[in-house]
Amino acid sequence: MILNKISSGILEPKITLVGAGPGDPDLISLKGVKALKTANVVLYDALVNGALLNHAPDDAIKIFVGRSDDESFSQAAVNKLMIDYALNFGHVVRLKSGDPFVFARGFEEVDFAESYSIETEIIPGISSATGVPGLHKIPMIYGNLSESFWVLTGTNSRGEISPDLIGAAKSNATVVVLMGIEKIKEIAEIFRGEGKERLPVAVIENGSARNENIVVGVVDTIAELVEDHQISSPALLVFGDVVSLHPAFDRIRDFYQMLAES
Amino acid sequence: MILNKISSGILEPKITLVGAGPGDPDLISLKGVKALKTANVVLYDALVNGALLNHAPDDAIKIFVGRSDDESFSQAAVNKLMIDYALNFGHVVRLKSGDPFVFARGFEEVDFAESYSIETEIIPGISSATGVPGLHKIPMIYGNLSESFWVLTGTNSRGEISPDLIGAAKSNATVVVLMGIEKIKEIAEIFRGEGKERLPVAVIENGSARNENIVVGVVDTIAELVEDHQISSPALLVFGDVVSLHPAFDRIRDFYQMLAES
Repeated sequence: MILNKISSGILEPKITLVGAGPGDPDLISLKGVKALKTANVVLYDALVNGALLNHAPDDAIKIFVGRSDDESFSQAAVNKLMIDYALNFGHVVRLKSGDPFVFARGFEEVDFAESYSIETEIIPGISSATGVPGLHKIPMIYGNLSESFWVLTGTNSRGEISPDLIGAAKSNATVVVLMGIEKIKEIAEIFRGEGKERLPVAVIENGSARNENIVVGVVDTIAELVEDHQISSPALLVFGDVVSLHPAFDRIRDFYQMLAES
Repeated sequence: MILNKISSGILEPKITLVGAGPGDPDLISLKGVKALKTANVVLYDALVNGALLNHAPDDAIKIFVGRSDDESFSQAAVNKLMIDYALNFGHVVRLKSGDPFVFARGFEEVDFAESYSIETEIIPGISSATGVPGLHKIPMIYGNLSESFWVLTGTNSRGEISPDLIGAAKSNATVVVLMGIEKIKEIAEIFRGEGKERLPVAVIENGSARNENIVVGVVDTIAELVEDHQISSPALLVFGDVVSLHPAFDRIRDFYQMLAES
């Protein structure tokens, strides 16, 4: 069937980058679903919910391309696959978790496709950085608690915590750290260095998915809480007074109140 | 018909906050569409694309509640409408542009609904802060150009530029300012004060909508460009070296190169 389509010459190569959003498969956009319905090939990441592949035609080719930090699927290998499939099979949907232009190397992929003069389209997705805290009723900006939010990676291209985190820990912004769960101790230490031992923190694992998990604490307690609750990647960290609006923070507030009065 | 449903007692009051995403109506999530399909009432903002109302049943009540800064629809008035409609008509969808928990006072609305013991649900949307620059192939984080992004409001609850902008202008983060177009001169001045006269800037009006518009310049030229191109609200501002990846920046780079060599 695919061969027929190719030989009839109706397939124009095209690459569409689609942001799948966080874990819940119903958080993809209508536009993303429409792109999947016309896909000849889908290249999908490890964090993308498998249920999304059902939007693509049964005879579309579906290829798993691992995690971006997985050596077996380098960015160069993914780029090459994308081009090969577009030239041979037509419409390739590159399905990425979250939003493709926040952290997920979307720019390199579009740039590479354009260097082959292949038509590209970008369909944004809900970034877990903004969407997931909201699902837990934690606003990014709120009255006198926060007037901005700062999103960082816990693991930059050199595998390190971004030096920007030092500025973020000094600032009044709500600070969201993606890909930082493995470095929670070091990150908490940076906030402690700014005298923010009691700044509220939430850690959300598998945000919006069925197996999601949240722990709420303060800078001084969060690393231990993460260990106790065995929270692991993917997870995002939210540092800021806005976290105090979460109902789980009431007990923590009471505890410190009691401590202060005793 | 609605009266029949109420008298038969099948309507449970419920309030669902739905993020509509930026201007393109196909950027709403599947989950948001499903919520609209079961709405008895839709309360929608000025920036929400009217086409989205077609997802709601024909007999659903659709009510325009203006812009959040519009005096004729105060937050207290919207809160009251939401409760009244939920108690009398069942499922109220509160449709907000972008993501409901970034800037859009989603927390107040959910909190108020819960104080009446009304069931609430939150469905995130694509925030223009992350989704719109990506549509123009401007990544938030990129190699050695940026390791983080900082999102601020140009107009805080006191009607002022957030003091956080001073820190943002000093930082290495990509800086995204929402609701700041009217204060573009003052905002550019803050970056100039940090010696960043030539920092690349993009201003995107009506991002993702059919009438969208983008201008690209540097801190020194952006206010004039905005005036020349008559860019107005809603628009977002992106300050950072990542903007240099936009094709329109090539000519600007050439110009400064020429200037340096002459």
